[in-house]
Amino acid sequence: MKAAIIGTSGYGGGELIRILNNHPFFSIHSVHTAREERPISFEYPHLTNIFEQVLTSIDPEKIVAESDVVFLATPSKVSGELVESFFHKDIKVIDLSGDLRLKESDSYRKWYKHEPVAESVLTEAVYGLSEWNREKIADASILANPGCYPTAALLGLAPVIKEKVIDPKSVIIDAKSGVSGAGRSPSLGTLYAELNENFKIYKVNEHQHTPEIEQQLSLWNGAEMKITFSTHLIPVTRGIMTTMYVNLKKEIDTVKLLDLYEETYSRHPFVRVRKKGIFPAVKEVKGSNYCDIGLHADSRTGRLTIVSVIDNLMKGAAGQAVQNANIMFGLDETAGLNLMPLYP
Amino acid sequence: MKAAIIGTSGYGGGELIRILNNHPFFSIHSVHTAREERPISFEYPHLTNIFEQVLTSIDPEKIVAESDVVFLATPSKVSGELVESFFHKDIKVIDLSGDLRLKESDSYRKWYKHEPVAESVLTEAVYGLSEWNREKIADASILANPGCYPTAALLGLAPVIKEKVIDPKSVIIDAKSGVSGAGRSPSLGTLYAELNENFKIYKVNEHQHTPEIEQQLSLWNGAEMKITFSTHLIPVTRGIMTTMYVNLKKEIDTVKLLDLYEETYSRHPFVRVRKKGIFPAVKEVKGSNYCDIGLHADSRTGRLTIVSVIDNLMKGAAGQAVQNANIMFGLDETAGLNLMPLYP
Amino acid sequence: MKAAIIGTSGYGGGELIRILNNHPFFSIHSVHTAREERPISFEYPHLTNIFEQVLTSIDPEKIVAESDVVFLATPSKVSGELVESFFHKDIKVIDLSGDLRLKESDSYRKWYKHEPVAESVLTEAVYGLSEWNREKIADASILANPGCYPTAALLGLAPVIKEKVIDPKSVIIDAKSGVSGAGRSPSLGTLYAELNENFKIYKVNEHQHTPEIEQQLSLWNGAEMKITFSTHLIPVTRGIMTTMYVNLKKEIDTVKLLDLYEETYSRHPFVRVRKKGIFPAVKEVKGSNYCDIGLHADSRTGRLTIVSVIDNLMKGAAGQAVQNANIMFGLDETAGLNLMPLYP
Amino acid sequence: MKAAIIGTSGYGGGELIRILNNHPFFSIHSVHTAREERPISFEYPHLTNIFEQVLTSIDPEKIVAESDVVFLATPSKVSGELVESFFHKDIKVIDLSGDLRLKESDSYRKWYKHEPVAESVLTEAVYGLSEWNREKIADASILANPGCYPTAALLGLAPVIKEKVIDPKSVIIDAKSGVSGAGRSPSLGTLYAELNENFKIYKVNEHQHTPEIEQQLSLWNGAEMKITFSTHLIPVTRGIMTTMYVNLKKEIDTVKLLDLYEETYSRHPFVRVRKKGIFPAVKEVKGSNYCDIGLHADSRTGRLTIVSVIDNLMKGAAGQAVQNANIMFGLDETAGLNLMPLYP
Repeated sequence: MKAAIIGTSGYGGGELIRILNNHPFFSIHSVHTAREERPISFEYPHLTNIFEQVLTSIDPEKIVAESDVVFLATPSKVSGELVESFFHKDIKVIDLSGDLRLKESDSYRKWYKHEPVAESVLTEAVYGLSEWNREKIADASILANPGCYPTAALLGLAPVIKEKVIDPKSVIIDAKSGVSGAGRSPSLGTLYAELNENFKIYKVNEHQHTPEIEQQLSLWNGAEMKITFSTHLIPVTRGIMTTMYVNLKKEIDTVKLLDLYEETYSRHPFVRVRKKGIFPAVKEVKGSNYCDIGLHADSRTGRLTIVSVIDNLMKGAAGQAVQNANIMFGLDETAGLNLMPLYP
Repeated sequence: MKAAIIGTSGYGGGELIRILNNHPFFSIHSVHTAREERPISFEYPHLTNIFEQVLTSIDPEKIVAESDVVFLATPSKVSGELVESFFHKDIKVIDLSGDLRLKESDSYRKWYKHEPVAESVLTEAVYGLSEWNREKIADASILANPGCYPTAALLGLAPVIKEKVIDPKSVIIDAKSGVSGAGRSPSLGTLYAELNENFKIYKVNEHQHTPEIEQQLSLWNGAEMKITFSTHLIPVTRGIMTTMYVNLKKEIDTVKLLDLYEETYSRHPFVRVRKKGIFPAVKEVKGSNYCDIGLHADSRTGRLTIVSVIDNLMKGAAGQAVQNANIMFGLDETAGLNLMPLYP
Repeated sequence: MKAAIIGTSGYGGGELIRILNNHPFFSIHSVHTAREERPISFEYPHLTNIFEQVLTSIDPEKIVAESDVVFLATPSKVSGELVESFFHKDIKVIDLSGDLRLKESDSYRKWYKHEPVAESVLTEAVYGLSEWNREKIADASILANPGCYPTAALLGLAPVIKEKVIDPKSVIIDAKSGVSGAGRSPSLGTLYAELNENFKIYKVNEHQHTPEIEQQLSLWNGAEMKITFSTHLIPVTRGIMTTMYVNLKKEIDTVKLLDLYEETYSRHPFVRVRKKGIFPAVKEVKGSNYCDIGLHADSRTGRLTIVSVIDNLMKGAAGQAVQNANIMFGLDETAGLNLMPLYP
Repeated sequence: MKAAIIGTSGYGGGELIRILNNHPFFSIHSVHTAREERPISFEYPHLTNIFEQVLTSIDPEKIVAESDVVFLATPSKVSGELVESFFHKDIKVIDLSGDLRLKESDSYRKWYKHEPVAESVLTEAVYGLSEWNREKIADASILANPGCYPTAALLGLAPVIKEKVIDPKSVIIDAKSGVSGAGRSPSLGTLYAELNENFKIYKVNEHQHTPEIEQQLSLWNGAEMKITFSTHLIPVTRGIMTTMYVNLKKEIDTVKLLDLYEETYSRHPFVRVRKKGIFPAVKEVKGSNYCDIGLHADSRTGRLTIVSVIDNLMKGAAGQAVQNANIMFGLDETAGLNLMPLYP
């Protein structure tokens, strides 16, 4: 199967190349940029001799004619503008931006501060949280790949929300991300000298991933949920940890809760649950598509602490996008994704 | 005034030297080690030509005879054993370990897993949270210097706890620390290759600073308080951020809360409150004795997010210890502490 | 084919697992430790669900009986002691330590400060610089895998030494390495707080890789060569850069020299030569088996600057070891090694 | 004495504020920017409550009228344009850029790729290598503050060049710098995700500091000298190491050479010479004005390796600028500069 990638000058696009270049069933047919045409190894010398295609301009008709799937590794708004050219055409679309994720246009306007795509597109787009939406993904022709924070948070919260063992009003998500999530465009805030030896909080109660998390939690909960959500910048390149605090409705011990998680995720190869007393660290998933989870219930306070980690460029972006492509094309969900964590 | 420092081979002891070597009123009379005697510049080449004393063995009688104040920059248990030699002697004692902080022996036993010092010592030891315990500190002859996490958390929580505007059962502290807090003893967990590009959570609901924070909050609250407390390791050398989540009893907006903080800390030179929409980052206090605070009240959820940052070796250890020494000797609290943050 | 790995608690051993676990022709039959038996995921949680074997004690007879090749990822001296148990047995041996590399016992004694292995073993051991010793490697039953610094330095110097275009007395190698090369044993010098924000030089003119580099250069040169060699520690986990300075015998321009390198390495998939004006960076090979080379001839001084980079755990250790195993077993040299650089 | 600072939005300007704000004899009278007027704490929140001046536009007449010295912490070309407004006016000028350092206009044109300032200005400007040009600095009214690399290289090479114990044709300088030297303007090359876990070489044989180093070495040598000079980027914020290789004319041992360095620098408080077998690391001078030096003579090759380290923002920029200001105003050269290295 042939894949086209749009927007390879960001880190998400680069990661798609890393995965798809060794994928057993997909080949990268073309890579595209809105900027001037040039060999991709000018952007990414690490691809020398490995992947030497030329970035070409974006010609949707040609892409539809030549490829089976197109990955939009473009920023919000750009994706939204592009997506309509591929909608209801003979190509599957996987969008890595936030433009197709929110079902309610008003919510998009409020959190993204610009106009959403057409309702008809939003209605059809399937939310690609692979472990929890597999059947719809299998049938999807247009897919909204989840955000990095929502992926980590939702995989960590799903079992206790669905089992209704926690107070849905009590959810607090303290999230921390590596810097690659901020993209590759130069800005003061992402300079080395500003972030190195630093740790920042940003977008307190204002992150645009808030409604995405709430939308999915509310679906599982069967009633609207609101969360408290904070995001921090860790001085690492890759990795997200979400530390989540919820109030247990009644006392349940750590082992019982871990059993619930083990059982829930036993058929899902990319979710790993740690044993009691052990918590995952972001480096344990670096470069891989895993989401690792640990938790502890505190009888002193009746509160549960859940910790999940992912590589933001993999399970949080390109990895999950390929996992979804696998599902959409009826392949083994792990095809091309047996990339072990790079440790140390 | 003459100061003796015990335990200079850890980072806290090194930081005491950095401050006291340029202090206008204290001079470093002697530095001591439990290991073999050697010039301190063997341990710390950066002190070459600046501070060239020899680390000598610990002779409490001699220290009492020669110095006005002794700083114990020793680990828990070691401090506890040493402190009795200086108790009720003609010398002021400032202990940087956790051994004198908890008033209840049983609590110490539970969280520190060994025997506490004598009750008589505990009773007399004054808790040195400089901004909030100034009068007792001024009269103290034996001082328990606060832990790094408790300092950041308590300075951030004090105004809303004392004003009783939050639900005391709702306090969640998500704390993140740089690595220097773990000391200078080699261990697998603090190797460069293990921590670099990593972010870990540790001691979930089990950190020994929990009872220290609860003890002080309970005093302010007038009733026992329990907190949820998690600690993470940031790949930076210095810096702590505590992100704290509390439920507001009734709606108050961010600006009103910031006013409360501004007013509360207006007479305290080392606490800086950020304006609305701005949050502190750990690098903005690196190498200095400041605690910087920002906050945001979320009307969507009725929850308040408070963020405080300190340099764990300064306001979280040696800096606050010197601030307390200044107060104990009737000096200007900022003497020797006008060290600007090293940025970048 | 079945592989046994001894010494998986170091980073080199861990990297062998990462490669061999996905290798199309080798499977990891057993992993061994000199310490207590335990599941390897206790050491390396990132292997959870991926590679769950138990580390067992080292029983050479059993290993010989069950496996086709044994990798010794053990430190110098330990390897030397182990190797004799596998010598002239029905198993191929690949040693990642320095114990089999030096042909002259006296040189080993001088630089390694302990006794070398038996001359008979040294005589038979083949030096595994894959690109330059392929024929002997193909026939080897016991292989000395090159050191990390020698690999980077020798691949960078080979063309100009063999072509005799430089003064052999003029070779200066300024080498820089990431920290993982120092292994996983706790020590003050490799603590995070000591290395972070630091850059150190060590073993000036005293590094034990000096005679290894000189031995190979002298072979190529046809006469003894002595080098000046300095090693530095970069605050990164992986990566080596060697910046090399040599005097050109007569003026040759950069393009001609690059042509020489291009031609020399055109049949070698793991060596990539940069274009004029472009130099490799260590991150461009991270996690991969590539050695990337750039150079510039300066007509002002008649001196040539050659730059080579590798991932010290890959082409500098486990990657080249597997490349050599592939050659020893008649496989495609790249089998299992199509691991793209992890960028960023 | 009153100081004006122009160009405080770069890191050099920020460092001048850190030093001068606590200086016993200088006060910061005004700070200036070419961009819009705004409180400096908008740029640098770490200055909150410490230094709260407003950045105002650059009015040379007003600056001359109100201040005793002006520091130009502006980039090359901008400095050159500004400097003529202050030339031969009643104010001392200290320029941190490269615009006044090269005496030969043609050399400036070649390496800086734009037009130099007027010859009359260049003639009068004194090169501010504090330890070696003290008398001229004391009389200077316009001062060219040395570059960061030249400072480290020249302090390390001076004794052996002046004593004529090395071959002047053999000088190779392998330099490594932290990232803050690249300034605070956003660019792809200085993004966190690009530099973190990376180590790059840049401007091979093309760095504009080459002629500055050669100019001074040639003066000391009494005949023209050419060097080989490479620069690398270390993933740290602050710090430069220069590793230098020179051929000894005749054998001299390490101890004798160290004696020469000790004697040469004994009256210079900011140069520290390490003992035999010990080499400085960049973190040992972080935040301070020290230049630390170590060396080793190798009898095997007749070559000497010299290592020097500085903090590029301090001895490599703002620190030396203030040291020079102290000398120009007849103050103790260390005034305001007793800032200990921040370790760890």
